[in-house]
Amino acid sequence: MVKVGIVGGTGYTGVELLRLLVMHPQVELVAVTSRSEAGQAVADLYPNLRGFLALPFSEPTLENLAQCDLVFFATPNGVAMKMVPDLLAKGVKVVDLAADFRLQDPKAWEEWYGMPHACVDTLGEAVYGLPEVNRELIKQARIVANPGCYPTAVQLGFLPLLEQGIVDSANLIADAKSGVSGAGRQASVGTLLCEASESFKAYGVGGHRHLPEIKQGLELSADTSVGLTFVPHLTPMIRGIHATCYSQVLDKSIDLQTLFEQRYIDEPFVDVMPEGAAPETRSVKGSNICRLAVHRPQGGNTVVVLSVIDNLVKGAAGQAIQNMNLMCGLDEAEGLGQVPLMP
Amino acid sequence: MVKVGIVGGTGYTGVELLRLLVMHPQVELVAVTSRSEAGQAVADLYPNLRGFLALPFSEPTLENLAQCDLVFFATPNGVAMKMVPDLLAKGVKVVDLAADFRLQDPKAWEEWYGMPHACVDTLGEAVYGLPEVNRELIKQARIVANPGCYPTAVQLGFLPLLEQGIVDSANLIADAKSGVSGAGRQASVGTLLCEASESFKAYGVGGHRHLPEIKQGLELSADTSVGLTFVPHLTPMIRGIHATCYSQVLDKSIDLQTLFEQRYIDEPFVDVMPEGAAPETRSVKGSNICRLAVHRPQGGNTVVVLSVIDNLVKGAAGQAIQNMNLMCGLDEAEGLGQVPLMP
Amino acid sequence: MVKVGIVGGTGYTGVELLRLLVMHPQVELVAVTSRSEAGQAVADLYPNLRGFLALPFSEPTLENLAQCDLVFFATPNGVAMKMVPDLLAKGVKVVDLAADFRLQDPKAWEEWYGMPHACVDTLGEAVYGLPEVNRELIKQARIVANPGCYPTAVQLGFLPLLEQGIVDSANLIADAKSGVSGAGRQASVGTLLCEASESFKAYGVGGHRHLPEIKQGLELSADTSVGLTFVPHLTPMIRGIHATCYSQVLDKSIDLQTLFEQRYIDEPFVDVMPEGAAPETRSVKGSNICRLAVHRPQGGNTVVVLSVIDNLVKGAAGQAIQNMNLMCGLDEAEGLGQVPLMP
Amino acid sequence: MVKVGIVGGTGYTGVELLRLLVMHPQVELVAVTSRSEAGQAVADLYPNLRGFLALPFSEPTLENLAQCDLVFFATPNGVAMKMVPDLLAKGVKVVDLAADFRLQDPKAWEEWYGMPHACVDTLGEAVYGLPEVNRELIKQARIVANPGCYPTAVQLGFLPLLEQGIVDSANLIADAKSGVSGAGRQASVGTLLCEASESFKAYGVGGHRHLPEIKQGLELSADTSVGLTFVPHLTPMIRGIHATCYSQVLDKSIDLQTLFEQRYIDEPFVDVMPEGAAPETRSVKGSNICRLAVHRPQGGNTVVVLSVIDNLVKGAAGQAIQNMNLMCGLDEAEGLGQVPLMP
Repeated sequence: MVKVGIVGGTGYTGVELLRLLVMHPQVELVAVTSRSEAGQAVADLYPNLRGFLALPFSEPTLENLAQCDLVFFATPNGVAMKMVPDLLAKGVKVVDLAADFRLQDPKAWEEWYGMPHACVDTLGEAVYGLPEVNRELIKQARIVANPGCYPTAVQLGFLPLLEQGIVDSANLIADAKSGVSGAGRQASVGTLLCEASESFKAYGVGGHRHLPEIKQGLELSADTSVGLTFVPHLTPMIRGIHATCYSQVLDKSIDLQTLFEQRYIDEPFVDVMPEGAAPETRSVKGSNICRLAVHRPQGGNTVVVLSVIDNLVKGAAGQAIQNMNLMCGLDEAEGLGQVPLMP
Repeated sequence: MVKVGIVGGTGYTGVELLRLLVMHPQVELVAVTSRSEAGQAVADLYPNLRGFLALPFSEPTLENLAQCDLVFFATPNGVAMKMVPDLLAKGVKVVDLAADFRLQDPKAWEEWYGMPHACVDTLGEAVYGLPEVNRELIKQARIVANPGCYPTAVQLGFLPLLEQGIVDSANLIADAKSGVSGAGRQASVGTLLCEASESFKAYGVGGHRHLPEIKQGLELSADTSVGLTFVPHLTPMIRGIHATCYSQVLDKSIDLQTLFEQRYIDEPFVDVMPEGAAPETRSVKGSNICRLAVHRPQGGNTVVVLSVIDNLVKGAAGQAIQNMNLMCGLDEAEGLGQVPLMP
Repeated sequence: MVKVGIVGGTGYTGVELLRLLVMHPQVELVAVTSRSEAGQAVADLYPNLRGFLALPFSEPTLENLAQCDLVFFATPNGVAMKMVPDLLAKGVKVVDLAADFRLQDPKAWEEWYGMPHACVDTLGEAVYGLPEVNRELIKQARIVANPGCYPTAVQLGFLPLLEQGIVDSANLIADAKSGVSGAGRQASVGTLLCEASESFKAYGVGGHRHLPEIKQGLELSADTSVGLTFVPHLTPMIRGIHATCYSQVLDKSIDLQTLFEQRYIDEPFVDVMPEGAAPETRSVKGSNICRLAVHRPQGGNTVVVLSVIDNLVKGAAGQAIQNMNLMCGLDEAEGLGQVPLMP
Repeated sequence: MVKVGIVGGTGYTGVELLRLLVMHPQVELVAVTSRSEAGQAVADLYPNLRGFLALPFSEPTLENLAQCDLVFFATPNGVAMKMVPDLLAKGVKVVDLAADFRLQDPKAWEEWYGMPHACVDTLGEAVYGLPEVNRELIKQARIVANPGCYPTAVQLGFLPLLEQGIVDSANLIADAKSGVSGAGRQASVGTLLCEASESFKAYGVGGHRHLPEIKQGLELSADTSVGLTFVPHLTPMIRGIHATCYSQVLDKSIDLQTLFEQRYIDEPFVDVMPEGAAPETRSVKGSNICRLAVHRPQGGNTVVVLSVIDNLVKGAAGQAIQNMNLMCGLDEAEGLGQVPLMP
């Protein structure tokens, strides 16, 4: 059994980790921390866990967390980087679901997140936790940076094209749409039901924090620089991301369907749909699956990849557990067999 | 392993049975029938099942179904009653998720469902599948009538009060609200997103088919006749039923909280919330749990019981599997451990 | 032209007043105040008003408001009562959309709203602004207490029955369902899209502030004391209230349909539907109409009245303008001719 | 007063025409036809019209319609083209909200709509009803082809760029998202609330009927051929279209904000938002406004135009009335002053 702790268990990624971990056959939950809720039963805050979890929230102390084999950080950006070095020193592995360890360049981090990085040395050893790219590195890692939700959907959509160098990498467009849970559980006017339902809008057009993360990943795959326009949108639903990825193919004779199927043939959580299909976000709701389809409309140069995930699962908690499984020598898919909830 | 068949696998209760059964450790799915879709892969119609189920839809023939140990009917009303006697004769057990075997009185069936009952003899041996009332009978049954969604929520709300005879049984009110999936997957104008979202309405005020079913159940529990006003409403969401049950207490000194907790203390799928609480339907989404709270506002005579279920799980497919588990000698909760999906 | 001011123009009742008033042919908007947004253009906060309103928010000073003929308070409870006496002294009429002047008994106000009333003398002259009951008094009033949203829907549903004394007034039940906009535009976790959509729940079962307001109104109509159980519920949509009103008829021979039609025959904003109908909340979305239907299921004693309004219009801003029209000698329906938005 | 008829008044564009026309001060509604509902009161089908419209549905006969000055066709594709020549011969003007007269090339029509065009001669005189492009022609027209919803949003987004020839017209991408009402009011599984809510998907990626319509319009504006990738998506809400339009600017020194503001400065129904803004679809709900914003992210070559409309108003019924106003010599904005409904 892996002894697991969660720091910051009150947000949506926290409760989603709990939903998945309480049923994970190889995990023992030993600590769920929340400074604001310490002492309260977790299931009082999240009644869906009544009968599944008896733990109370506890204080996020080093002492409390050092008893764990692995700790998940489901905290706001900037929290994990202050605690991770101490945990590593105690022999505790870490998966950070926030952005602290995602950008390899500390200057880029400071620019996009507005604060200096607190542990640049540790940053160097952090592995970017996209198993479809870094599986072997993740197995050896002590600290894994769990990818953002948009970056997961967009990278999995572009990877086969960029790895093969068959599209113009200077001119990529990712038009991405997210459900509202991506904005978290903080009280804010913009995500009230009366503001966000029955409406659709773009946001962060001038520059979203996931842009440098996506670019970094795509450039590694392409092994060259990449030009990316990334426009995120808010769509009136709870869960789900749909990325529509546009690029210009350099050679129209390539069989894109076969390319995608071959690239992901051994991946347990990537499903390439048949030619002509269009995945719905609900077809992955509650599951760790990324579902893809590839099109070249009217036989032209433009390749359109449709990529859907559940932002809270493959885009956060599920992928974090996939990483934990790899880091702890478990079956990669353990505890992640949920069938999507439909309708 | 129990060999299981599903007749009518294309509706919402059908796909929900599939979602739960593909992960059930003691079940082997051998046939999913659909006259209209025979030959097509089930997962083509329901992409959430891609990777979980390789079966195609097959024809609903006796031959096809006779190989099963147990068959679920997830068909429109009036279908099961024509096939059940033959299946029983072949030694196949049946759980009918439609209404064919719910009303013990064939005249009442004919009146409310507009057709004569096709197998009155078999009707006599059918057990009403509410485990919280009929657990021992279900274990012995060959044919179980799975309760309707409203009847499950309303009966579990009223039962403790009626069994103890502490409310005026002549004047019960059940104001019930259902998500739209209760109306099924048939193409119809009334349940289009543009008709049913952003709106709320009552329907069937003059008389809904679940009224005689609820009355029948309540009268058995009360051991007397019952006067019930039942008003169902459509609420703009996919899953969930919320029943608000009103009755007049005869003796204000009774401790209702304790009464409810004691009544359901051993029930694996009924959760009585603490005093003062109000259950949300989302707290049971995707799970087989019925969550209850009991109130007596302002210390008056009116008892208000709040009862929530997921209409597709405890109100249909989940309860059907709970019945199957009982009928087949399995652990009653096997395959029904899903944590509700929240948010 | 009536010179109009709005105090507290940033909430949902404020922006709804603006939506209606910018098109009102007899109104000149001279001040929209907001302490927090003073100086900013109103249309910057509410882009739906771009091109319709050039005013900036201003400070809520007496000087600023004294130039108005009539001022609407769309403020939190407890604000209006501190400013109203000064405005009346300046000859300004007031419609308060909050609760400050709704309860005639200052002790009841203190009990339910948790603060002493600041102007008990003025309270005495305030008229409860339900035109269907108090039309003549409203025409003479200087200060009108605009009814709450639930109280409007519930009272219009029960009034014909209580005025005629034909139901048991000791045992009324109002099971009411509201869209989320009733909770206002404050940032709060409970009304986030991810918390309030795809779910249904009761709240305030132990006692909601609208209970004493409804009781006060019903007792005046019944001319006797009234026993009322009031259970509000939150339903996942933006606008709309549906009240399902239960009572026990004392004489089954009365023609309820005719009673309701006669009671409201001259009311411009109450529509009694034909026998057997069930109004949808969306059928009044964006309009000042209350739509009713009356049923006596199975010919029993229980009368069920279905009553729907748009909580932001007939339940707030529209009724406030209806009151303004009456107070200022205008056509009662002026500026309130909007056709409901459907779908 | 203009005497107006509506053929096919039972769909969403039909009821939206009615919502707007019953309040239009210069219109007298003389016929609303529906073969299936003839004889029934229109307000029985659409309760939002109770009290606003007393007309029953009538048969769509020439005799019935010849008394009109202008007839709107809110019918399925292929209906109008069979009746229009006879109506024109009777001196009746026509606005067709379907696609029959949108494509100037009858072969293209046959290819995309699967039937030969029934009145190629009349097609030649039909004017494409986008007032921002064809205002003067519309004023003289007897028959106007009302643009599709996607084509309206996408063309208004690209026009200023193409008219000035400042983007690469060979490589345009329109990623468009529509609410579900765009699919109409026909009973169909795909637009049930349980299928279309809480999900997001692309559709018609291989080729959507609005593609040739958009291309035709853009090529006229660009005065050259155009390469367009058009990917429509279904978003879980009732009303609204959001088009995100991507193109590559040829000269980065051009002031795009000024270009857009100047292009639309005199347009009554196009609102260019300030630099950096992002329009929400709800900011135009129920109104005839198209709201635009233009971005050039990170100062790169890619121009991103955000364009929102209410698909049932500026994308259908509202624009049709705007065209009627022009054709009949009325003020272009008459009857179209609705303030968007928000929230």
